[in-house]
Amino acid sequence: MTRYEPADSFATPRFSDVRTFMRLPHNRDLENANVAIVGAPFDTGATFRAGARFGPEGIRSASHLLRRHNSGLGVTIFDHVSAIDYGDVPVVPGYIESSYEWIEEGLRPIYEADVVPIVLGGDHSIALPELRAAAKRHGPLALVQFDSHPDTWDSYFGEKHTHGTPFRRAVEEGLLDVERSIQVGMRGSIYDERDWDDAKEMGFELLTTDDVRKLGIEATTRRIHERVGEAKTYVSFDIDFVDPAFAPGTGTPEVGGFSSWESQQFARSLAGLHIVGFDVVEVYPAYDLAQITALLAANIAHDFLSLVALARKRGGISGK
Amino acid sequence: MTRYEPADSFATPRFSDVRTFMRLPHNRDLENANVAIVGAPFDTGATFRAGARFGPEGIRSASHLLRRHNSGLGVTIFDHVSAIDYGDVPVVPGYIESSYEWIEEGLRPIYEADVVPIVLGGDHSIALPELRAAAKRHGPLALVQFDSHPDTWDSYFGEKHTHGTPFRRAVEEGLLDVERSIQVGMRGSIYDERDWDDAKEMGFELLTTDDVRKLGIEATTRRIHERVGEAKTYVSFDIDFVDPAFAPGTGTPEVGGFSSWESQQFARSLAGLHIVGFDVVEVYPAYDLAQITALLAANIAHDFLSLVALARKRGGISGK
Amino acid sequence: MTRYEPADSFATPRFSDVRTFMRLPHNRDLENANVAIVGAPFDTGATFRAGARFGPEGIRSASHLLRRHNSGLGVTIFDHVSAIDYGDVPVVPGYIESSYEWIEEGLRPIYEADVVPIVLGGDHSIALPELRAAAKRHGPLALVQFDSHPDTWDSYFGEKHTHGTPFRRAVEEGLLDVERSIQVGMRGSIYDERDWDDAKEMGFELLTTDDVRKLGIEATTRRIHERVGEAKTYVSFDIDFVDPAFAPGTGTPEVGGFSSWESQQFARSLAGLHIVGFDVVEVYPAYDLAQITALLAANIAHDFLSLVALARKRGGISGK
Amino acid sequence: MTRYEPADSFATPRFSDVRTFMRLPHNRDLENANVAIVGAPFDTGATFRAGARFGPEGIRSASHLLRRHNSGLGVTIFDHVSAIDYGDVPVVPGYIESSYEWIEEGLRPIYEADVVPIVLGGDHSIALPELRAAAKRHGPLALVQFDSHPDTWDSYFGEKHTHGTPFRRAVEEGLLDVERSIQVGMRGSIYDERDWDDAKEMGFELLTTDDVRKLGIEATTRRIHERVGEAKTYVSFDIDFVDPAFAPGTGTPEVGGFSSWESQQFARSLAGLHIVGFDVVEVYPAYDLAQITALLAANIAHDFLSLVALARKRGGISGK
Amino acid sequence: MTRYEPADSFATPRFSDVRTFMRLPHNRDLENANVAIVGAPFDTGATFRAGARFGPEGIRSASHLLRRHNSGLGVTIFDHVSAIDYGDVPVVPGYIESSYEWIEEGLRPIYEADVVPIVLGGDHSIALPELRAAAKRHGPLALVQFDSHPDTWDSYFGEKHTHGTPFRRAVEEGLLDVERSIQVGMRGSIYDERDWDDAKEMGFELLTTDDVRKLGIEATTRRIHERVGEAKTYVSFDIDFVDPAFAPGTGTPEVGGFSSWESQQFARSLAGLHIVGFDVVEVYPAYDLAQITALLAANIAHDFLSLVALARKRGGISGK
Amino acid sequence: MTRYEPADSFATPRFSDVRTFMRLPHNRDLENANVAIVGAPFDTGATFRAGARFGPEGIRSASHLLRRHNSGLGVTIFDHVSAIDYGDVPVVPGYIESSYEWIEEGLRPIYEADVVPIVLGGDHSIALPELRAAAKRHGPLALVQFDSHPDTWDSYFGEKHTHGTPFRRAVEEGLLDVERSIQVGMRGSIYDERDWDDAKEMGFELLTTDDVRKLGIEATTRRIHERVGEAKTYVSFDIDFVDPAFAPGTGTPEVGGFSSWESQQFARSLAGLHIVGFDVVEVYPAYDLAQITALLAANIAHDFLSLVALARKRGGISGK
Repeated sequence: MTRYEPADSFATPRFSDVRTFMRLPHNRDLENANVAIVGAPFDTGATFRAGARFGPEGIRSASHLLRRHNSGLGVTIFDHVSAIDYGDVPVVPGYIESSYEWIEEGLRPIYEADVVPIVLGGDHSIALPELRAAAKRHGPLALVQFDSHPDTWDSYFGEKHTHGTPFRRAVEEGLLDVERSIQVGMRGSIYDERDWDDAKEMGFELLTTDDVRKLGIEATTRRIHERVGEAKTYVSFDIDFVDPAFAPGTGTPEVGGFSSWESQQFARSLAGLHIVGFDVVEVYPAYDLAQITALLAANIAHDFLSLVALARKRGGISGK
Repeated sequence: MTRYEPADSFATPRFSDVRTFMRLPHNRDLENANVAIVGAPFDTGATFRAGARFGPEGIRSASHLLRRHNSGLGVTIFDHVSAIDYGDVPVVPGYIESSYEWIEEGLRPIYEADVVPIVLGGDHSIALPELRAAAKRHGPLALVQFDSHPDTWDSYFGEKHTHGTPFRRAVEEGLLDVERSIQVGMRGSIYDERDWDDAKEMGFELLTTDDVRKLGIEATTRRIHERVGEAKTYVSFDIDFVDPAFAPGTGTPEVGGFSSWESQQFARSLAGLHIVGFDVVEVYPAYDLAQITALLAANIAHDFLSLVALARKRGGISGK
Repeated sequence: MTRYEPADSFATPRFSDVRTFMRLPHNRDLENANVAIVGAPFDTGATFRAGARFGPEGIRSASHLLRRHNSGLGVTIFDHVSAIDYGDVPVVPGYIESSYEWIEEGLRPIYEADVVPIVLGGDHSIALPELRAAAKRHGPLALVQFDSHPDTWDSYFGEKHTHGTPFRRAVEEGLLDVERSIQVGMRGSIYDERDWDDAKEMGFELLTTDDVRKLGIEATTRRIHERVGEAKTYVSFDIDFVDPAFAPGTGTPEVGGFSSWESQQFARSLAGLHIVGFDVVEVYPAYDLAQITALLAANIAHDFLSLVALARKRGGISGK
Repeated sequence: MTRYEPADSFATPRFSDVRTFMRLPHNRDLENANVAIVGAPFDTGATFRAGARFGPEGIRSASHLLRRHNSGLGVTIFDHVSAIDYGDVPVVPGYIESSYEWIEEGLRPIYEADVVPIVLGGDHSIALPELRAAAKRHGPLALVQFDSHPDTWDSYFGEKHTHGTPFRRAVEEGLLDVERSIQVGMRGSIYDERDWDDAKEMGFELLTTDDVRKLGIEATTRRIHERVGEAKTYVSFDIDFVDPAFAPGTGTPEVGGFSSWESQQFARSLAGLHIVGFDVVEVYPAYDLAQITALLAANIAHDFLSLVALARKRGGISGK
Repeated sequence: MTRYEPADSFATPRFSDVRTFMRLPHNRDLENANVAIVGAPFDTGATFRAGARFGPEGIRSASHLLRRHNSGLGVTIFDHVSAIDYGDVPVVPGYIESSYEWIEEGLRPIYEADVVPIVLGGDHSIALPELRAAAKRHGPLALVQFDSHPDTWDSYFGEKHTHGTPFRRAVEEGLLDVERSIQVGMRGSIYDERDWDDAKEMGFELLTTDDVRKLGIEATTRRIHERVGEAKTYVSFDIDFVDPAFAPGTGTPEVGGFSSWESQQFARSLAGLHIVGFDVVEVYPAYDLAQITALLAANIAHDFLSLVALARKRGGISGK
Repeated sequence: MTRYEPADSFATPRFSDVRTFMRLPHNRDLENANVAIVGAPFDTGATFRAGARFGPEGIRSASHLLRRHNSGLGVTIFDHVSAIDYGDVPVVPGYIESSYEWIEEGLRPIYEADVVPIVLGGDHSIALPELRAAAKRHGPLALVQFDSHPDTWDSYFGEKHTHGTPFRRAVEEGLLDVERSIQVGMRGSIYDERDWDDAKEMGFELLTTDDVRKLGIEATTRRIHERVGEAKTYVSFDIDFVDPAFAPGTGTPEVGGFSSWESQQFARSLAGLHIVGFDVVEVYPAYDLAQITALLAANIAHDFLSLVALARKRGGISGK
């Protein structure tokens, strides 16, 4: 089996070459890959700013700064993992239902090949077709969602599909093992005082930013592990979980959020879970500065990639 | 009858107050208005960049620099016209067909009151509901379109509605008097060598940027007047008609375009036509610098407002 | 009595319409309002950068992201409060004394109607006419000032009025109950080692950023409450209290400041005080990125609005 | 006599060292200088945007790109001229009358030493103290003004001094030989149809942008020479003469302006006039991009410096 | 033979997928290609700003807007040409001589395969290794250089290799048929009045921007054809040929340059020449806005690609 | 002896005048100075982004906000110190070895005069010639390095000198008392799991960001003091020690870093050490926003200047 890994940064500079994630080979050879980085350049679901369609490009570009060894997790990624940049799934800008079909269809071969996808969004509406594809292979999944919004509203302007509604739809469609699912980071102004209770009533555990500040990061991560347990899990990281100072390039920013360091602690704390798919969403490069948002998103994706490497190093069960 | 006009810039500074177009009153009193400035904050039809939903905000903001007298057309606008900022028509981000209904519905009372709308886009897909509303009141209209693209493609990704297709749809729906319609400014790379011929075969007169450079501005404007004649006319100004140096804040920029001065000559040359509606579209503030795109768009809208004033001054027939 | 509240964000998108604060109605109906949002687009008092005249526009624009329920304070604002966007008070750019008269005069009807103003600055020099207007109605006020500078210098370049001097002037004019006043957040380089002692000698309690770091946020907020007690209070929030990473768009930034989350804790901690007026000042949009400064300022103003709602919910005494 | 000239760009790179104009020595040795570059970092007179106080810094920074030989005028500057960066004249931000005194006072020694000043603004209000200083030494002067606005309004908000009024004040004070003065480039919307006639009635010749487009550049420059003749002349170049695409970093931009190449033709066409002082004003770096506005302003100042060199090369009479 | 062409823009949106030039396949199959797009991410030769190392990324990103048919040259590119994105040649940041070897070596296989390279710079110093590689295959070449600087200085700071010296070195090394070579567009301030004469004395024909303005574009392009004749030709397009308003993202901008439309006329006028290699250099994305510089550079490269297609369509001799 | 100090900010505004550090006199009078601020505008050593050559300009510009008294360290600087802006040392862009000679040579007179240099970079490769100059005067030095990378790699692309290698070279050349040297702040992805161990094996104490988070700031600073003891010390502060939210304008940003407040605590904690030279490096203004990175760097330099003042106040031994 070929092991796919990034180009050597001591042979040619990291600022060189066509922008794939981490300078990985761009191909669709699922046979020889454990992880596939996949772009989902879709933003028709956005209710405030637009522009997440350029998120995959932005994250890929910033990812050229990343190196092979993850010091936070203590793993040299490509000793344990073969990874490819799979390119983007097809989308139809302006048509959310058709795009949902294309995205689900685009991800299906990855799941079928038991390759772990790390999806680069795109607005958060893509979580629904992601979960459809994942659940088709794995059945209902535990969800670990880092986000400042629960995205469990029922509808906007009379329409069911936006980046504010995917997780309600996912529950309705039975894609989630909601009793094992947890949402972390809710904060800011909300439409109605019951917005968060709604999510809880659907079955989610929901920890607000204020909850986390009270509990502390460590206790919070223990809660995540307790909640999820051994279940097969989908991890969805909305970059607006992070404070706009650290992640200005997003669509519905909420001040009062987490720092980049704290965000990395959360991502890394997931080691040990049985994760079958990941995404990092809501990066809007037109609102970014010096790529700091895209770079943070790339680092989060790098942590996710490292989680798979770590699981494989430890004889874990993620991916094939 | 009340005459609505901007706040006095010698009493309070132009940088003051809530951003309405030119500091006009914000109301829906169509009884007492000749012109209504209307925002259509819609960008679900965009096929490359996104963000025209903030176009109306951007143009309104920049318009605070504008003053009452149009020196290029020689008319003191509010001696002849009562104008209001009507606010925005409703849209549903992510849903183009529903938005088309809302936009058409939103514009209908304006046409019914014989008020001339100047619509601030939004991406160019809004031209279809605009023309539906206009044609419902006035019958098929002549079109004068300034644009670097004809927007007469048939479909993208199998879907009929984008900002690249509204004028083909308008022809199909019988909204245009295509024999009196003219498209000016096409340039740049195209998908197929027949793209522009298609527009001609639908009946449009089409003048490319190269044609205009050969003819000169004056001859071109004569061609417009000859083509349109006495017909009731809709004027649609896509800011990408202008070169990206002068209008960087747009969605599908084409280099090699017209300067701001040339663009103003075209707008002003329309004096004498019987125009029943206007739009300025495809302003994307997130890609703008120091508001130069928005300011140019605001100036074009100011010229359009002045055309109505001039028609009224001369006893013309635009609006009530 | 009419209750004024924001437009419904599920009916039309938040990015729609003329930019008023939180999409509130723009009128001057003080009869039916408890709170008036007022812009003071003045920056002639600035001693380093300029541009706070666009602060009210910037904050209004960003405020369209805000929703009705304040999760941090646990109050659904418009169940308890009727609020309007009052527009801007008149100013004369380049003339600080005349502007002081216009601003005071502009705010007087609001105070006379027992409506609580939340003023959007503008540079901090506007605090003087604000306090003149407030004190005329309420007598000398306690001041709670969040700021990295005490703004109690005597003069600059031989002139008495700048954004570095308003609170010394206010003390000289007897507008403050200085024994009940507290300044929080001073830090950075200063002109003279006695700069802060001067403020203390005038009677202010002054807590530097280093003091606050030592005390902790909770103890600090207790100190504020102890200091102010039952006094009628004016709250002035200079956005440079916050670190430039979270609030780059300001005029005299001081590194080493507070985070957005910490800033919100301070704003929310004021619940229970008897506050008769608020401001948020020193927002310079030309130096901002992706509106993060303006959005933070809008959130602070949202917290202030919520404090009034909370007081009214609890049967409090703020406003009428 | 020492000849002051820029640092050698083949010895140390142009991006080196403290930013003086063109890397000239920074001193006040008027004995040994023919030209003094002087900053006037004042923007209290601005009626729309603010920020011209950083204009001198911006122009100095961009000027490091400039080299010794002016190819357009065919003169190796420092073969004929000794030039210094004099630093800035004192100003009092927020106080226009005091600043006028400081600026006039600051420029006086330069005029007294028969050194030609090239003033880097600052907003256009500084033209009044400049002309006061110049006229004190030379008597009433011809004015050549490149600008999109005549700046001959009477007052704003009841106040006499802003960047819209200096030339009316100058006429009232007898500082101008108005019969030999000419204003070039007016365009855009104006407050009242009589705005430009007012300037003409004061005695100015006024050529609008439309006039210049009809006449052509060459005929226009002949008109300037005919108008001015042998009179001692002050040249004032407002960067908003240029189109915002070429000069976005300005305070009251007017679209439809001149290109950078055209602007240089105008500046260079002044060769042969008897010029005793120059300014380049209204550069606002916070609105600039990649320094293109500042670089254009620096090039215009470089042309002005070259005009003095050329006059001295030809045995001309400018400066000592 | 496989014909390589861009992904279909009606199947997946142009904003999709890994950024290759025009969405071409990224491979090194020189057998089946007529044209290879090659990045040279090198900027160690820059003497003022730095950052051209990101030029290839920037141009590739903007090129996603480009379509298959070139309307200006009347050719549907991929009916006649098979093109690949070859990726980048290796460079060593900070070491110009080693990089020269790597770049020459990197380009050699392309020339050996009789594939026409279109090189995306990088600063202009890369012209030397490009010409070394080209001359090794084709012998001394005619040069058509569009640029605001001749780049024929001898040395900077005592060193022979910078972006200001490559064409002098190329003459010294016998890489150019200097009698058939022409430099177009010189303007701005220069170090010494003999700078341009030096280039002429080396044998170049040199047309300044002022020369071109006098001759007109058409006569200028005739001069180019007369000069070059039938010789094998290298075309080098420095984006600073264009005015900074149209191309702000460059390293040593010179105001007073050509518009984007004029620049395209020059590029397209080369049809009929026997061109064996092209470059577009000096794009600095960190100084760009909304990609307008990168987009113009991409369009110039698109014209170059079209010239090859046209030559092949006409049975021409460019490439294999 | 003359005491050099900044211009008086109450006499002329801080935004005035040629940009020297803190408005200090620009001269080379080492006789009368204790501290010399020196620019090293060099970025040829950079391996990812470029542009640190404009770092000194950026830091000088932002430093105009700084005032005479350091409240964090409790010292009125210019009561104890005479400081000058020495200008820049010569560099040769594109040639690292020659530049190393020029920089060392440029710094030598400062060390010989027993003046303490505070060097404004420039990329981190300048640390090598700095240490060569310092060690020539003082012998091997203790190093306190704040940085997210140890910069002890052996080579890149086969070359020995980049901004990733200076400290390995310094050890090899015997410039460091490595047993008294400490590196603080390493984090992020690394090329190889042994990268940091390598630094330790060379003899450095190395504290990662994670180590510091565990230890706390106070314990960390004790470790620094214990490590360094009485040794003569060089302090090198790479701005990428700080999180990109606080310092976006840098070349190889690593997310998860320290805040501005924490960074200041580290800088100030060095009081009491025997420091003979300082630098602040890796500021890239083209990637900065509203000067927040440059301002933070200026504040760090201000703290360093204050450390010297404090040492002199306490009868300390730094400098003459």
